[in-house]
Amino acid sequence: MIANTPKPPYYAVIFTSQRTSIDDGYTEMSGKMENLAKLQDGFLGIESAREHVGISISYWNSLEDIIKWKNNVEHAFAAEKGKEQWYQNYKVRICKIEKDYAFEK
Amino acid sequence: MIANTPKPPYYAVIFTSQRTSIDDGYTEMSGKMENLAKLQDGFLGIESAREHVGISISYWNSLEDIIKWKNNVEHAFAAEKGKEQWYQNYKVRICKIEKDYAFEK
Repeated sequence: MIANTPKPPYYAVIFTSQRTSIDDGYTEMSGKMENLAKLQDGFLGIESAREHVGISISYWNSLEDIIKWKNNVEHAFAAEKGKEQWYQNYKVRICKIEKDYAFEK
Repeated sequence: MIANTPKPPYYAVIFTSQRTSIDDGYTEMSGKMENLAKLQDGFLGIESAREHVGISISYWNSLEDIIKWKNNVEHAFAAEKGKEQWYQNYKVRICKIEKDYAFEK
């Protein structure tokens, strides 16, 4: 689904990753973290796809909301497990959406 | 590949889309546009993946570089064909990357 975000400005976390071959609960944790993110203050939406790389973009009202989500205890635990097991490498980019436009048939 | 972008600030175009079932040159045009983007001034990198939605993020030095790429004649032609045939819907978000960090095993 394309996230139904409000009028800019708002913020995003772009998480681009390459997985290891280890599953060990990855799929379950991934779904759990997405559901948990949706419950956080300031959460606006999420878009994800994976091929050679995985891209997951979560949208937020403010930078403060992003920092609170980063520091959420369950999320921080999942992030640690991600570094130990699930991710070969990743990059996190914090950005401000300044403009957007859409097309629909 | 995870794009090897420089130290922030820099800019990004997040293109999230859902395809129609029509191919008619889509795959070829998609590769052609990626190669053409790489030749533009200010291009910094690109990351793409498609599952239920497609996400393609191109990174740029400045907003001016993004506008020039949007107005590139071949790109504008491809975009028109995209609206006519290839995309059911899409959203384009222009954003400023303010911070990033990376992890590598």
